[in-house]
Order: sequence, then C-alpha cells, then structure tokens
Amino acid sequence: MKQLPSELIETLKEFLKEDIRSGDLTTEVTIPVDAKGVATIYAKSKAILAGMEEVIAIAEITGLEHDQLVFEGNWVNPGEGVMKLSGSARTLLSVERVCLNIVQRMSGIATKTYKMVAEARKSNPKVRVAATRKTTPGFRYFEKRAVTIGGGDTHRYALDDMVLIKNNHISVVGSVGKAVRMAREEVSFSKKVSCEARTLQEAIEAIEAGADIVLLDNFSPQDAAGVHEVLTKKNLRDRVILEISGGVDEDNIRAYAESGCDVLSSGSLTHSYKSSDFNMLLSMR
Amino acid sequence: MKQLPSELIETLKEFLKEDIRSGDLTTEVTIPVDAKGVATIYAKSKAILAGMEEVIAIAEITGLEHDQLVFEGNWVNPGEGVMKLSGSARTLLSVERVCLNIVQRMSGIATKTYKMVAEARKSNPKVRVAATRKTTPGFRYFEKRAVTIGGGDTHRYALDDMVLIKNNHISVVGSVGKAVRMAREEVSFSKKVSCEARTLQEAIEAIEAGADIVLLDNFSPQDAAGVHEVLTKKNLRDRVILEISGGVDEDNIRAYAESGCDVLSSGSLTHSYKSSDFNMLLSMR
Amino acid sequence: MKQLPSELIETLKEFLKEDIRSGDLTTEVTIPVDAKGVATIYAKSKAILAGMEEVIAIAEITGLEHDQLVFEGNWVNPGEGVMKLSGSARTLLSVERVCLNIVQRMSGIATKTYKMVAEARKSNPKVRVAATRKTTPGFRYFEKRAVTIGGGDTHRYALDDMVLIKNNHISVVGSVGKAVRMAREEVSFSKKVSCEARTLQEAIEAIEAGADIVLLDNFSPQDAAGVHEVLTKKNLRDRVILEISGGVDEDNIRAYAESGCDVLSSGSLTHSYKSSDFNMLLSMR
Amino acid sequence: MKQLPSELIETLKEFLKEDIRSGDLTTEVTIPVDAKGVATIYAKSKAILAGMEEVIAIAEITGLEHDQLVFEGNWVNPGEGVMKLSGSARTLLSVERVCLNIVQRMSGIATKTYKMVAEARKSNPKVRVAATRKTTPGFRYFEKRAVTIGGGDTHRYALDDMVLIKNNHISVVGSVGKAVRMAREEVSFSKKVSCEARTLQEAIEAIEAGADIVLLDNFSPQDAAGVHEVLTKKNLRDRVILEISGGVDEDNIRAYAESGCDVLSSGSLTHSYKSSDFNMLLSMR
Amino acid sequence: MKQLPSELIETLKEFLKEDIRSGDLTTEVTIPVDAKGVATIYAKSKAILAGMEEVIAIAEITGLEHDQLVFEGNWVNPGEGVMKLSGSARTLLSVERVCLNIVQRMSGIATKTYKMVAEARKSNPKVRVAATRKTTPGFRYFEKRAVTIGGGDTHRYALDDMVLIKNNHISVVGSVGKAVRMAREEVSFSKKVSCEARTLQEAIEAIEAGADIVLLDNFSPQDAAGVHEVLTKKNLRDRVILEISGGVDEDNIRAYAESGCDVLSSGSLTHSYKSSDFNMLLSMR
Amino acid sequence: MKQLPSELIETLKEFLKEDIRSGDLTTEVTIPVDAKGVATIYAKSKAILAGMEEVIAIAEITGLEHDQLVFEGNWVNPGEGVMKLSGSARTLLSVERVCLNIVQRMSGIATKTYKMVAEARKSNPKVRVAATRKTTPGFRYFEKRAVTIGGGDTHRYALDDMVLIKNNHISVVGSVGKAVRMAREEVSFSKKVSCEARTLQEAIEAIEAGADIVLLDNFSPQDAAGVHEVLTKKNLRDRVILEISGGVDEDNIRAYAESGCDVLSSGSLTHSYKSSDFNMLLSMR
Repeated sequence: MKQLPSELIETLKEFLKEDIRSGDLTTEVTIPVDAKGVATIYAKSKAILAGMEEVIAIAEITGLEHDQLVFEGNWVNPGEGVMKLSGSARTLLSVERVCLNIVQRMSGIATKTYKMVAEARKSNPKVRVAATRKTTPGFRYFEKRAVTIGGGDTHRYALDDMVLIKNNHISVVGSVGKAVRMAREEVSFSKKVSCEARTLQEAIEAIEAGADIVLLDNFSPQDAAGVHEVLTKKNLRDRVILEISGGVDEDNIRAYAESGCDVLSSGSLTHSYKSSDFNMLLSMR
Repeated sequence: MKQLPSELIETLKEFLKEDIRSGDLTTEVTIPVDAKGVATIYAKSKAILAGMEEVIAIAEITGLEHDQLVFEGNWVNPGEGVMKLSGSARTLLSVERVCLNIVQRMSGIATKTYKMVAEARKSNPKVRVAATRKTTPGFRYFEKRAVTIGGGDTHRYALDDMVLIKNNHISVVGSVGKAVRMAREEVSFSKKVSCEARTLQEAIEAIEAGADIVLLDNFSPQDAAGVHEVLTKKNLRDRVILEISGGVDEDNIRAYAESGCDVLSSGSLTHSYKSSDFNMLLSMR
Repeated sequence: MKQLPSELIETLKEFLKEDIRSGDLTTEVTIPVDAKGVATIYAKSKAILAGMEEVIAIAEITGLEHDQLVFEGNWVNPGEGVMKLSGSARTLLSVERVCLNIVQRMSGIATKTYKMVAEARKSNPKVRVAATRKTTPGFRYFEKRAVTIGGGDTHRYALDDMVLIKNNHISVVGSVGKAVRMAREEVSFSKKVSCEARTLQEAIEAIEAGADIVLLDNFSPQDAAGVHEVLTKKNLRDRVILEISGGVDEDNIRAYAESGCDVLSSGSLTHSYKSSDFNMLLSMR
Repeated sequence: MKQLPSELIETLKEFLKEDIRSGDLTTEVTIPVDAKGVATIYAKSKAILAGMEEVIAIAEITGLEHDQLVFEGNWVNPGEGVMKLSGSARTLLSVERVCLNIVQRMSGIATKTYKMVAEARKSNPKVRVAATRKTTPGFRYFEKRAVTIGGGDTHRYALDDMVLIKNNHISVVGSVGKAVRMAREEVSFSKKVSCEARTLQEAIEAIEAGADIVLLDNFSPQDAAGVHEVLTKKNLRDRVILEISGGVDEDNIRAYAESGCDVLSSGSLTHSYKSSDFNMLLSMR
Repeated sequence: MKQLPSELIETLKEFLKEDIRSGDLTTEVTIPVDAKGVATIYAKSKAILAGMEEVIAIAEITGLEHDQLVFEGNWVNPGEGVMKLSGSARTLLSVERVCLNIVQRMSGIATKTYKMVAEARKSNPKVRVAATRKTTPGFRYFEKRAVTIGGGDTHRYALDDMVLIKNNHISVVGSVGKAVRMAREEVSFSKKVSCEARTLQEAIEAIEAGADIVLLDNFSPQDAAGVHEVLTKKNLRDRVILEISGGVDEDNIRAYAESGCDVLSSGSLTHSYKSSDFNMLLSMR
Repeated sequence: MKQLPSELIETLKEFLKEDIRSGDLTTEVTIPVDAKGVATIYAKSKAILAGMEEVIAIAEITGLEHDQLVFEGNWVNPGEGVMKLSGSARTLLSVERVCLNIVQRMSGIATKTYKMVAEARKSNPKVRVAATRKTTPGFRYFEKRAVTIGGGDTHRYALDDMVLIKNNHISVVGSVGKAVRMAREEVSFSKKVSCEARTLQEAIEAIEAGADIVLLDNFSPQDAAGVHEVLTKKNLRDRVILEISGGVDEDNIRAYAESGCDVLSSGSLTHSYKSSDFNMLLSMR
C-alpha cells in the first residue's frame, strides 16, 4: 500500500481550486455557514474501487471527517456506499464534484486493468500488464496509481525512470547495438536500459549489447512467441525481460500472454477506459 | 477564436515537467546535443482537430518552430499531417508524448461534441449542447476548450461562474422558490441564477422567483416537451432559458432537442469520449 | 456570510512574508522566545467593522488564539475593542502591522459603502450600489469583500465574470446591436451580457439585441430618469437591469438613485476611501 | 533610477491574472484575434507621474510595444499623454485596467510625497520625509517606489531591514537602554538600531546605549525642537539620526521640519492618499 | 534564539521533495504502512550542534514526534544522541537523509565558526567574526544560521541588507568619497553604508564622506593595525566600524584580531568547512 | 552532454532572488542604469571546470551575452579566463556572487571526482566512482552534475530512482532474501533492485532472490575481493553489479578498485570537497 506523497496534496489543492475558484456561489447563498452534514459516496456501477486515498486527503485538507467503508482494489456493486464524509455542509457540497471526478476515473482504470490482468494470466500466470505514458497531462500520478490498484505495473512514470530506446533514437544512432552500448556507458548503473526491437535480429543485438529489457513493438502473438523460442534456445532469454506493446487490448491480451513474454504494455489502460459511475448524497445532521 | 491565457502557459510547463522530470535519459544519451530535426504530427483516425494552440504554445516554450497545416475545428483524415515542428532533435523527442496526449484527448472530445451538436440540431437548429463539470482534474480548461472547438457550450467553468441550485441545496433551504429568492438577493446582479426543477410546478416556482435558467433534471424528452408547452401557454417560456440534463447522449439527443428546450447538457462529452489517434514522425535535418 | 476560500490563505501568508521577510529583527532580539501575551485590536475612529475573517485566518496560520468581540458589518466606536489575540508575544508583534493594514483598509471601504447605500436607498429602497474593478492590484478580493460587508454589490470580480461591452469594443465592432449579438452567440448561456449605452437609442438597441444589463455611462440623473421612462413605456424596462456609472459619489448618489435605475456603480468605493483608524495593544501574560 | 527586480515581474503577472483570470470574455467575443491597435494613457488630473516602469514591464510581459512620453517624477497636466502602447488590440484592452490601477495609485502617492517634501524643506532643506509600513498588503513595493519617485525616503521595507524598538518591546525588556544594548549585541553589525523615545531622558538613554536612530513618537514640534537643542548642547546630536513620527501630515510638516530633526515619517503617504486620475484611449491601426 | 520563519517551512518541504520525489520506493515495498518506530540521531564526531530547529520543523511537517536531547550551540561527542524522532517507520526512513544532510553541514559550520571566534577573542575579546555571501545557493539561510549558532555574525544576508561599495563600484564612480556620498544621499536613512578601502587614504576619505563601516580588503594584520592607529589619532576611529576581509582563516585570525579592528569576515566559514558526522538508528516500536 | 532541464531555470532564478532579494542597493546607487560592461570569470586555482551551463543560463535569464572560453570537464589553471559575460553593468555586478558560488562548488566537486576516478582506474580501468545522496539540500542537481563532469556516476538522484534495501529495511523484513523478493514483486519491472549485504552469505542470498545490484557496506578491500572471488566461482558474479561503499576516499580508492567490484560510492564527493577558487573582474565598455 502506498501513501500519497506530500506534493500530491498540493496537486489535490490545485484540483479543488480549479473547481471552486473564488468560491462556491450557490452554496454560499443557500447553506448556512454553520450547517453540518453527512455525505455518502455510492457506487452506481460495478467496479474495482480506487481513489479512496485521494478522497481521504481531500477530507483532511478541508477539515472533514471520513469513514472508509470499502478498501481500494475491491469490487463494489451498484448502490454500495464506499465512503462517508462528515462536517461542514458547505464544504461537503464544494468538494463533491472533485471527489467524484477522481473516483470515477481511477475506478474506471482500475477496473479495466483488473480485467486485462485476469485475462492475461489465464494463459501466463506470471505475466505483468503495464500502462504507458499515454496519460492525461497533470493527472498521471492518479492514473498510474489506479493501474497499480487494478493489479498492473506502472511502467515508466517519467522520462528519467529508465532508458527506453525507440525507433526514432535508433535511426539517429544507426543501430540497436550501438544505441544500447551508448546508453550502458553514459547512464548511471542504477538505471535499466530497454530497447525496442523490430526484428529477432535486433532483439539479439540489443541483448548482446547489454539491454535489460527488449520491447517487441507491433509483433503478432505468433511472431513474439517465435522470438521467445529462439532466445531460449540461444540461452539469451533469461538475461532479459521481454516486453510486448502495440495494439494490446482486452480481446487479444490472452494470446499475447501465451507467447511467453514477461510484460504486456497497453496505452488503452489510460487513454480509452470508461469512467465508473459514482454519486454523493448529502443528509443534514 | 481564443488565445491561451498566460497562466495556461504555466500549466503546459507543468505538463512537460510531469513527463520529463529531471531529464529525458534516453534522448540525452543517444541524440547529439546539436542535432536538428523536423517532426510532423499526423492524424491516424478521422477526427475534428483540436489542441493545436497547445502544441504551438509548447513549441514556443521550448524554442521550436511550428508550421500549422490544418486549423482547429476541421475534420482531418488518417494519414493527414496537421502540424510540423522543427528545431533541436532532443527537444522534439522530449515533448512528443505531451503534445500527443493533449491533441488526442482534445480531438476526441471535439469530435464527440461535433457529432452531438449536429445530431441535436437536426431537430432543433438553435439548441446548444453543453458540457458539465465532469472533467479530468487539472485538465478542465483543455477539455472545455475542446468542447468549444467542437461547437458546444462550455457551461460553468467553476463554481463561481453562476449560481446553480441543485437538489441538495433545495432540500436544505426548503423550496425552489425560497432558494432562488435567496440567491437573487445575495448574489451580484452580474451573475445568472439557475435552478434544478424536478416537476413542472417547481419549474414555474423557479421562474416566478426570478431564475434566469431552469434545469430539468432526468426528464424524459416527452416530459420536457410538456414543460415547454405549459410554460409557453403561461407566457413564462421567454423569461427563462430551459436546460435539460441527465442521461443525454448521442442516441437520444435528437429526441431531447425536439422538446423545445434551449440547452442540452451532457457529462459524457468529457467523461466518456474516446481519444482520437495521432502520432509524430521525426526526420533529421 | 462568506468563508475565506483556501487560496486566500496563501495570499495572507504572502502578506505576512512581505512584511516579515527573513525575520522580525527587533522582536527576535528583545522578546524571549517563550514569552506569551494578549493583544487587543481597538477601533480609534467610528467605522463599519471589516477584516475580522482575515485576522482570524492570520491567527490560525500563525498559531494564535482569537476571541472576536464584534461582528463584521457593525458600527464600532473609538476605543472599542474588536478582537483579542493571544499566544506567542513574538508572533503577536510580528503580525500586528499586517492585521492592522488589512482591518483599516477594509473597514474604510465598508464604512464608505454603508454610507452610500444608506444615502441611495433614501430615494430608492431597492437600488444596489456596486463597486468596480478600480481596486488595488493584489488586494481586490479583500476590497470587494469589504464592499459586501458594507452592503454593496461586488460587480465583476474579474474579466471572466460577465461580458461587459464598453465603448472601445463598440467602436471596433461598429454598433451596439452587433456587439451584443456577437456576445450572445459566442458566450456560454451561463453568462450575462452587459453593454454600455451612450444614448437612449443605443440602450434600446442593446436590449433588443438581447443584453441582460444596460450600463448608462456618464448620464446625468435627469437623463438617466428619461431613459428609464421611455423604456418603461416601450415595455422594455423589465427585460433589462439598468446600471449607472461615471462620477457617482456620496454627494449625488441619492439623485441618481431617484432616476429609477437598478444599480449604481462607483469606483470611488475602492480607489478613494479613507482608512479607518485601529491600533493594537499588547500585554504580557 | 531603479529597475524592477525580476521577482516583481511575477507580481505583475499575478496582478494581470487577478483581473483577467480565465480570460477577457468581452474582448474575446468582440475583437478579432489579429486586430492591432494603439492605446495612449492620458493624465486627467495634475500629478507627479509614477508607475511607468510597471506599465513598461506589463507591456514586455504581454508582447506590446511601448513608447514612454514623460519620465517618472515629472508633473503631468490633464490631457497630457504619458505612454503609448501598441500591438494586439485584445491585449491592449485586457491589460488596461491593471495598468491604470497601478499608475493612478502610484502617481497619487508620488504627488502627495512631493508636496510634503516641498513643504518640509521650506523650513529645513536637508530634512527627509519617510513613509512607514502602513501600506496595502501585497502592493508595498509599488507604494514605496512611488514614495521614492516623489522624493521621499522608503524607510523600512520589511521587519528585517533594521531594528526598530517600539514601546511594546521596551515594556517587555524594562528600559530603553537595556533594549538598545540587547539589540546592539545580538544583531549583525551591518544593521542599524533605532529606538522610540517618549521623553528626552529616553532619547539620551538610547543614544548612550548605542542607538543609530532615535524616533520621537507623538511629540509636538516644540517638544521635538527642545530635544534637538538639549542633545546638541550635550554633544550627542551628531551621533544620532533624529526621526519624528505620529500625526505628521501636510498641514503641520513644516512646523515639524523646523524642529531640527533629520527625518519626518508619515503613514498618511500610503494610507490616505488620493488616486490621481488617468485613462486609456484605444485607436485601431 | 531564533524561530524558523514560516517561509523556511516551504524550503524544507522542497528539500524533502528533492530527495523523495514521487516516493520512497524501497520503504514502500519493505515497511508496512502502519509500522511505528523510534529513530535517534547520534553524533559520530565532536562538534558544535546545529540544525535541531530544522529537524523539529521536518518532524512537524511530516507528523513525527520529537524529543530534543541537546540544545543547539553545545558541544556533542561521538556516540551522543541529540534528537529522538518517533512515529511512522516509513516516514522516519524517508526523512532520514535530509535531516542528516542538514545537521551535518550546519554543525560543521557552527563548529568552525566557534573555533575561529574563540581564537580571535584570545587577542581581542570584543571582535566579531562574520560570514560572507560565499554560501551554497539555496542553502544560505541555514548556513548563516549555523554561523550565528557558532557565535559568529551573519553579515549581509542579501544585497539589500546594506550598501557595500566594492572596488568595481569605486572604479565606475571615480573615488571612494564620491561613491560613499552618492550612497548616503540615495539610500534610505535606515540603511548602513560600508565601503572597501585599499589604502589608509581611502579609509579616511570614506569616513569623512559618511561611511558607517570601512572594509579593509586584503590588508596584512600589521597594515590593518596601522590604519587603526592613524584613525584613532585623527579622532575618526569611533565614527566607524572597521572590518577586515580577504584571506582571514583559522591560522591567522588571532593576528588579525590584534590589529584593533571590530569585525573579521571570512568566506571560509561557509565555503570550506568540513561536515560533522552524524547518523540515525531506527528501532521498531 | 546534458542540457539544463527547464525547471532548473526556475531554481537558478530562486538562487538569484536569494542573493538579490528586493534589489542590489549598492549597484543601484553607484552604477548608472545604462552603463555597459564586460566581466570575465577567471580561475584562481587549478581545477576541472564545471558550472558553465549554469552561468550561461543565468546570463540568458538576465539578458547578458556570454562567450564561453573553456569547456566543462577541462583542466583550468590559475589566471585562466573561462567565461566572458557582457551587458548591463548593474546586472553583471548583481549576478557575480551567485555565478561564482556555483562555479566554485561545482568545480571543486568535479576536480575531486576526476582525481578519484583516475586513482581508481589505475587498478581497475572499468570501475565506476559514484556519488551518494549526501548532498546539500536544494543544490543536489548541481552537485550530481558536477560529479558527471568529473567522470563519476550520479547514483540515485532521489528515492524513486531505484530500490536500495538498507540494513534498517532488512531488520524490519527479517532477511535479505525476503526483502529482495518483496521488492522484485511489488516494484515496476522498469526499476532496478539493489540490496546492502553485510556478509558473503547475504550477498549470495540477495543475488539468488533476484537483486540487480549488491552493495557491500563497510567491507575492507580484502573482504570485498573475497566476495568477488566466491561469487565468480559460484557463477553468480555476472548476474549482479557489485558496489562498495563506506569510507571510500582518495587514499584507499585504488585498493578498493582492485577488489574486482564494479562501482565505488563515496559520500565525500559531495560532503567534503574543497571549493575551487574563481573570481570575476569587470571593465566598463
């Protein structure tokens, strides 16, 4: 389990500021300043729950009390209460939309991740399903955390997490082998070096140059399985993590997982999920 | 046409920082510091183009030159180049992901908005299609701007844009009429007052109390049409803007538009759109 | 009653930082670090009290206890204590100047506003007295809040609150009617559209084009009353809010109020008020 | 002459953000994005001009060209143009209010300062007229700079500029002499030590303890002159700067200046000045 | 004793963010989220202790309890515990490095300062030993505070603390006397004016022009003593503070102190100190 | 070669603000606002040059022109000019101290690193010399970059760069093997896992559990060599990077390098280096 790093608190405050700006006009003119209430967040669709840490942090930022009813990572059903917030009725109404916007998106991602992991592991119980950097600008931390809650691997959070040599880099340098060797030499020993390979030959070249990870980009499941086999025969397979990306989605992930690779990456985890539905009901105290 | 407000420049810098953090490791070790290149952003799916102002701003922030090939708001086809960026090859590679993440999301929203507006106006040429506050935290400005590019109405940007009395407020105050009168009295004359109505009676009460807008929440198209007719007969219809929200989506928007209302609001414009597909290709100069 | 939005807390911290900077040299060398005291803020002139929320917020930011003796919006007399702060003597001395600078200015504005509202309502009990954007940069929120405490209307807080078409805009567009129609079309239905009119004819044109508010700029009370009458006869008066601005001040506001308009705006509320006098006395505990 | 420190640029951006917020709605819907114009700032009342550096900085921040017609510190007459700005018509309209709000306040302060300095120097040509910390929170830098332009002395900008022992400090420590000695000992040799004195005896005590400045608080001109004489006789006068504060204003400053003191401080320079009147006229290019 | 100004709290948060960034990976995967521990900071070398206020502030920022075992400014011996922190084991491990990095550097500086002060006062009990602006960018406040803890004088914190005319300024202006007179005239009476002198003649010129401090730059102890004597004879010595800088270090400070000057400044206090050694041991609760 | 990431620009602005604060008093009163000059930075001691990118960035931030005379990473000799800056004389004087403070520290670190790398590679030409996180808070980026310029390896920049299991973590988890397995399972495949080992047995346990790096803490060169040999015999050596830390310094690094390890880490690179000496001379243009 992961605590929100303190700088995320600042981000959540920015989210509240974005929505509330100079003040919640409606609440200020209709709700007495000292009115107290209890607000419950309910699931309205079946989902893997995520975003509770964020709601708790918002409660703490704004002086509300919280009572978490379900833990993150569990399935929730329509009509199920997941969190009770209590305190100033004005505050409850003013933070409602931001809380729901976070929980709906994070739960949507966690749900999709959970399903893809489950599907992939039917054929390969050790395979990892990883997200990409195709996230919403400004909201990446939360989308990546939702992937973790759904059982996925966050992959790189930012461009400084690992070296990942892509085709654009290779074409400038000239060859996979040369690019990997340059990275090995220049980058701190504390960092991994990954490299895209478009052919079996490039995969071998990358491994021999010292890549920690080889990324097969836009391979069919069959071709990926072929690479796995040849590498195994050449005793290169256990020197490297084999990752597949490009077009991996719910309907083909099981086939890709069968290929024998270690990691399946999918941009769709964060760029084309469906928000789960939640709402918040207020009662006065 | 709308220029990016200067504070958005800071937001775009934050987006770059989120992705690049302490540096683009891969590019630093594979691309010479003085290499120059040209990168073209291509559409990979049919879409209403959006996000060009943001890419231009990122180019200016990072010292790249830009040459816009298609204007925002136009349809683009798969394979069509939309923007050329040129300058430092390192910079081009380091900003690629953020540019694409913005363009893909904004074009996805603009495309969905455009379709819903077109569909609604088949039956009601003057109707407006509006977004809601169900946006991604931290990314609202861009999502709202994409709605505008697609021909939609942004609705409230934040809680201080207008008074919008919802059921939670009404239940605290006691009645629609009282809530509207409180708002009228307390809020600056420069602000509009909108109020949710659950029944025809509440709609009439809101108008008589001075609401500028009445929001019919979760009405069927038929019931909404009924409200429109009664208000017209009572000579109340032209004193108010009639808005419908709750479950409005692509498949029913035409029916809702026929009801005679002025505005149709839909959260799905920003919470369940599909990213359009774009990529960026680099060539060295 | 209005709570300070959380971002204002940051502004108050900036105010403290501006005055204290790297430390209160004098206090650090003369007051023991653990000395405790009680400081009372006294009025030294008759005034409508304002700025108490800000002092309370500063107390909370700096760990002082507070005991409010008079509510905002009430008259205070010379020698009357309005707030007791207690805690670290060093802190009390270090925040003194910022607290007084806020209370003196806000009370000065509230007092002037109160008097102008009272004067205007002698002849027109429903009229509103509104401030303008002629505020001190960086201090607008507090000046506007003081206007509210004095019984006035804040008018636009910023340029995104409402459309207000002024002569400079009209001269570019070509006519009042065209400018209002452009605004009506382009701007979200959630926003009001106001327009300056230099003549009766322009006022009528603005209303017919759909303006929510017509602003009579630099009219004499008599001319404004004439506009009111003609609009009433033409059945246009109840479709619009009539606002007067330009030279409205304490000595003529009653005459302007008699004209039948709805709103009287005056820049002098914030640009030429006199600070009320307050001081703070410390006793050790 | 003083350049704006770079952090002030950030402050000016904040001022623009405060006024423009998410965008200048009116300008966006009425002025074409590529329209160009020239805007001239005119004086509407006689004043010592100030605030030109700020307007220039705003022009540079927002990409406008500027042509300064009158230098700061000179008298301007009603109808006299002081600055021409040119560029995007939208930008000119969006920055108008902030520019004027700054120029009006700073010129008002510079004008008042100039008059008080002139009056004081009629009887004492070497006397300095100084401001206090009674400034508008968040706007102090600009108010102090206006004092300088008017020929005044800024006095302390913040609590870390100098030690200034006031009555509250003295009553905790026990005596003027002890307080000055504590300060002398604890504070860096690079800082001056000033001390309030309520009597001649305290003034002498402060000087003998090593004060650089003695501040006579709420003395009449006659009493202050008496202190000056005694100190002169005792050969203490040239070891100290003699400052008077408390109730110094335009009508009595000449009498105070005659007392033989070195510095006259007046809070009224920044808390009860009258804004000078300026406006901005736009013509399209 | 000096409390940390509130803006320093933000700086300490930045320090934590620099080290922890998006999260302490190791601690998150090995330490249970609810594990509690006690961590003690021990000295590993003999030193004057400094940095305790900073550790306490970090504890308060991160929700840890603290129990200070030794006060700042005292000698500590190897193996001596100086501070106990308790609370979340994850937090204790995540803040360890930043706490130690601060304490080691500050104690190193305090120790060096203490020794130099002791050495200098052997020959001149009233002399002050001052730091310079040769500090680590971003860390100056802490280095200056460490100097104070060690018994030194902070000298200027920033370029606005005092006028200090150096050779570069003199060569532009033309002479020491003219430069001092310009400063005296232009700068607020609340500020001191210091001036470098390369010769006895320049020292006299500076004093006669009104300098508060004369800085003898790169004088030998003998030459400095000569200046002191001549000034004394000419009755100028008590009108000025005499400071020496340039090459002052532990091995010659006693000789310089004998010269009769008031202040000895040494850049080596902050640019070439040796970090004291401290570590932190954790035990689970 | 590495460009400064854009957020570092903000850090450099903070450094300038720390030193200049509200303005460079001395320069403002002695140097005409339009005076132009040329300033040259000279080495005063033999050093590996570093910090030029920072000086260039400061020049660009402040509008100065720059002409770099020596590249970073080269030896410079006393009296050798390394950078010419030209432009506003006021600006040159105001940025002098910050530029020198950066260049002196970074060159000091680069010089020490260069020497330790050279010494270590006498006995082991492939060994890497790495820094630690014992850096000055707020200045880490620059210290790490100086290590790179000197030929060293930066090691972890922050706690999220890699998993590094230390004794405190192991004692909570119970064993090296368990801790490594927990990390392997929980952390993204894109991250390396390193583990401290106190004995040969722990080293073997860590490798078998999947550690990428084993860190021998406080081993003698002989004991480290023994670990290297046993691992080689057991065919485990090439599955792991072997790092040594604890007491590595200039006088023993060659012996440690002979042990056959891959990386030698030394906190002294950043906590006990000696600043190189540089100065800046100004001539007017």
